[in-house]
Amino acid sequence: MICERYPSFRERSENVDLVVEISLQPWKVFKPDGVILFSDILTPLPGMNIPFDILKGKGPVIHDPLRTANDVAGVTEFVPEESVPYVGEALSILREEVKSEAAVLGFVGAPFTLASYVVEGGSSKHFSKIKNLAFSQPKVLHALLQKFTDSMSRYIKYQADNGAQAVQIFDSWATELSPVDFEEFSLPYLKEIVSSVKKTHPHLPLILYASGSGGLLERLRLTGVDVVSLDWTVDMWEGRRRLGLDVAVQGNIDPGVLFGSKEFITKRIHDTIKKAGSDKHILNLGHGIVVGTPEENVAHFFEVAKGIRYSNLSS
Amino acid sequence: MICERYPSFRERSENVDLVVEISLQPWKVFKPDGVILFSDILTPLPGMNIPFDILKGKGPVIHDPLRTANDVAGVTEFVPEESVPYVGEALSILREEVKSEAAVLGFVGAPFTLASYVVEGGSSKHFSKIKNLAFSQPKVLHALLQKFTDSMSRYIKYQADNGAQAVQIFDSWATELSPVDFEEFSLPYLKEIVSSVKKTHPHLPLILYASGSGGLLERLRLTGVDVVSLDWTVDMWEGRRRLGLDVAVQGNIDPGVLFGSKEFITKRIHDTIKKAGSDKHILNLGHGIVVGTPEENVAHFFEVAKGIRYSNLSS
Repeated sequence: MICERYPSFRERSENVDLVVEISLQPWKVFKPDGVILFSDILTPLPGMNIPFDILKGKGPVIHDPLRTANDVAGVTEFVPEESVPYVGEALSILREEVKSEAAVLGFVGAPFTLASYVVEGGSSKHFSKIKNLAFSQPKVLHALLQKFTDSMSRYIKYQADNGAQAVQIFDSWATELSPVDFEEFSLPYLKEIVSSVKKTHPHLPLILYASGSGGLLERLRLTGVDVVSLDWTVDMWEGRRRLGLDVAVQGNIDPGVLFGSKEFITKRIHDTIKKAGSDKHILNLGHGIVVGTPEENVAHFFEVAKGIRYSNLSS
Repeated sequence: MICERYPSFRERSENVDLVVEISLQPWKVFKPDGVILFSDILTPLPGMNIPFDILKGKGPVIHDPLRTANDVAGVTEFVPEESVPYVGEALSILREEVKSEAAVLGFVGAPFTLASYVVEGGSSKHFSKIKNLAFSQPKVLHALLQKFTDSMSRYIKYQADNGAQAVQIFDSWATELSPVDFEEFSLPYLKEIVSSVKKTHPHLPLILYASGSGGLLERLRLTGVDVVSLDWTVDMWEGRRRLGLDVAVQGNIDPGVLFGSKEFITKRIHDTIKKAGSDKHILNLGHGIVVGTPEENVAHFFEVAKGIRYSNLSS
């Protein structure tokens, strides 16, 4: 097991050979249509002068959380070629390995979500520290968000230049904000990233994921991304209508469905495809797979999905 | 400190004098318009032959989680008068204490949320055990949900008969379900509770709370409750329109706002009231208060809210 030989997440995710090997593992077993770079949204942080670790059972830890204007001033510009050359190398190798059999997918963290980690000092339940900053010293937070915006725009382009054929932006924590606060602390930065990337890479599909976005859908559309990932808490049919049918959607099967019977899994896949319609839909779970999911059910998911790939169920 | 003298949550919540004292504490300090019974949604469980504990730092623990038809068959009918007489006594005393200065509020857990606890064995992150049951042996889960429905209908009536002037139903985990699964495993039971209570207590206001309900609002309306509590992830104006203006709303200020400046808190209160309109709105946080919230900001919240109670900001 790679995890046993290399218990440090950062070691696994910063070594080209390991990144390639781990990225290819699920593809070799299940042959999905996409190969996702093994990495973390926090991977760029050390290149911005923000050291971090990922500790087993605890998740990410930022040893010196940023809380003041001075802390933010110390955040440096991210130069992917210098700080994370292993990402570019791994993407090029993956592209070569999978050829046209699958798309190679990169990803980055959205500014607000990255800011949440570095202000809170890691994962959080109530996000009281970043909300304290947002609601009492908004300028300090805006300065930090702008730095992440510039760096992540550059990072997306770097990933595309090295072989990523689509890039997903994770704004996992944006949905902890009220819509009006999302409009101030997340939306403008997402828009800026999208428009910056589209200038140099007009054909690179950008995907946005924010879990629990039932209160935000119409605003996610305003970011200008090509694809919105829907988690399972929104009905696919209703989500498509709220987003507008010109936006593609990814999702949105409850990962918990894979704990059900095979018959139930099959039915839910068919229902989801019917609700999504025949156009602009990437079938996927609505969130990451849950530890403990029966592997035979994952295999069943792919089998059913592939079997109906070329049928048109959306009458 | 009561918590130091009585470290067991169950002891504090099952002793009439302590329940009354703790229930009145926030009211004595901040004089809100409501006094909420100090209790837990799991309090009825032992009366249904499901023992539980609430452990510090761990939350609720159900020692023998229910997973099979046989387990469900062992769940007994809840008779509040016999199992939780201290609840009725405490409510009567509270009613007497606060007279017409405040409303006394009771609450119960919704069937799906109670089922989640007893199937998972406590709090959960991914709800894989109850989803396994729902998606592979739905009949077993439905039998359990029916038992909770009957018992909670009875419990609401008991609370009202003993002094509760409104009862909130917490379906905290219903939003872990896809809307289509909510329609199967939660909505019919909520409807049944509401219609059962309305038969005998037509004027008792019933309030429904489900956090993160942005994907479910139109369905929450279908339960027939009088008031829907909105958390802060839905815009108040949009929430009202999606629910329909004939349904009252409670909420929906982000508890994280209380970590902001006083100016910001004031502004958010005014904005929320404007968005809610002048009618059928109970101003409140969109979720429980967060540990570590500055007490002076809580005081400020009440001061501002009371100052504008009789003005009409909703032009």
